[in-house]
Amino acid sequence: MGIPEMQTNLRAFARARDWQQFHSTKNLVMALTGEVGELNALLQWVEADNIQDWMTVPANREAARDEIADVLAYLLQLADGLGIDVEEAFNAKLGKNGAKYPIEKAKGVSTKYNDLG
Amino acid sequence: MGIPEMQTNLRAFARARDWQQFHSTKNLVMALTGEVGELNALLQWVEADNIQDWMTVPANREAARDEIADVLAYLLQLADGLGIDVEEAFNAKLGKNGAKYPIEKAKGVSTKYNDLG
Amino acid sequence: MGIPEMQTNLRAFARARDWQQFHSTKNLVMALTGEVGELNALLQWVEADNIQDWMTVPANREAARDEIADVLAYLLQLADGLGIDVEEAFNAKLGKNGAKYPIEKAKGVSTKYNDLG
Amino acid sequence: MGIPEMQTNLRAFARARDWQQFHSTKNLVMALTGEVGELNALLQWVEADNIQDWMTVPANREAARDEIADVLAYLLQLADGLGIDVEEAFNAKLGKNGAKYPIEKAKGVSTKYNDLG
Repeated sequence: MGIPEMQTNLRAFARARDWQQFHSTKNLVMALTGEVGELNALLQWVEADNIQDWMTVPANREAARDEIADVLAYLLQLADGLGIDVEEAFNAKLGKNGAKYPIEKAKGVSTKYNDLG
Repeated sequence: MGIPEMQTNLRAFARARDWQQFHSTKNLVMALTGEVGELNALLQWVEADNIQDWMTVPANREAARDEIADVLAYLLQLADGLGIDVEEAFNAKLGKNGAKYPIEKAKGVSTKYNDLG
Repeated sequence: MGIPEMQTNLRAFARARDWQQFHSTKNLVMALTGEVGELNALLQWVEADNIQDWMTVPANREAARDEIADVLAYLLQLADGLGIDVEEAFNAKLGKNGAKYPIEKAKGVSTKYNDLG
Repeated sequence: MGIPEMQTNLRAFARARDWQQFHSTKNLVMALTGEVGELNALLQWVEADNIQDWMTVPANREAARDEIADVLAYLLQLADGLGIDVEEAFNAKLGKNGAKYPIEKAKGVSTKYNDLG
């Protein structure tokens, strides 16, 4: 299943519940932010070195999966509402980043970049 | 191009630059949050009723596309690092949400739900 | 009660519970982000024109108060851990912004600025 | 200078520039989120163990100060617009949290709590 099909499913899900009325661009950005907040909250006190262990607990793993799914779902609905082709946008941005961070210069350097990475 | 292929490309991109060393789970969550912040900043002062118009300006459209791509790229790298299958997680969550918000009860009701939508 | 006193209270609160061990800078940034996420989630589906009405419902008002308090609490703990004087930082930034956005030029212009405002 | 005075200064700053028109509740939440995103982006690749060192570099320290000030400024403007007394909200929430996390039970336990801390 590709991204366009995910978006079709989300559209059907929202339409069946008459929820498109809430899905203005700003509302979806806020909802996306809310889910990213939950992802942060989920992991905030887990020790950095301990995350793979933490992920072996089924309830933790499921919570992480759910939050990642929620973030994706709002991101795809946001893009859909703005008429943005997500795969195209992704490829274009990866190309830009390749040009911005040529391999020889970017190698092992963290502080110079701030996106995609 | 599906999500697994996007993740393969991101992995190659990071590896070529020796950037995996920065991509711990917490760092990727923070980077994801940074990009969601940029998306918020981009749209914060745009009038809600005016967003479709705003999107007709090529520079705005490109900025929105880039931010959505950046959010997606970090989300996919985060999932990759945690060993989460994104499509599977998405489908499972959509199923859960369908059970949690049955169509008849959820119809037109905004305040009872807080995810996927 | 000023900000330094709030920080003293937060420090005592955390110390009594032996929670300083969790309060690394990155963890506090993530916790702050989690609370900002809750603030977004609280307001995401409220109609923009309807927020003052929505705030007259006591449970809503209390939730908004609580979220704002939570955001502030983590921000103050973060600053405390970094040894940043919040009032001083605030005044310095307001001064910078005044220089960056002179009144005559900035008047009524939203798209040129992205901070404090 | 206490929080009410900071809010008075922010109000004067915005009014002089005719910026109150942009400061709806949702817009301010988005602007707050944008600044929290910048704070995340600033620290995302800094090694956790290295943050105090990183803070000794004057440009880093100033950037951290500025971002914390920006987050505070939007938070205070948001509260102001909603008619929320920030100090009162803070004290009330700290009291609630004290009741929710009694010292004996909460001692050294991270996973049970998700706010103030």
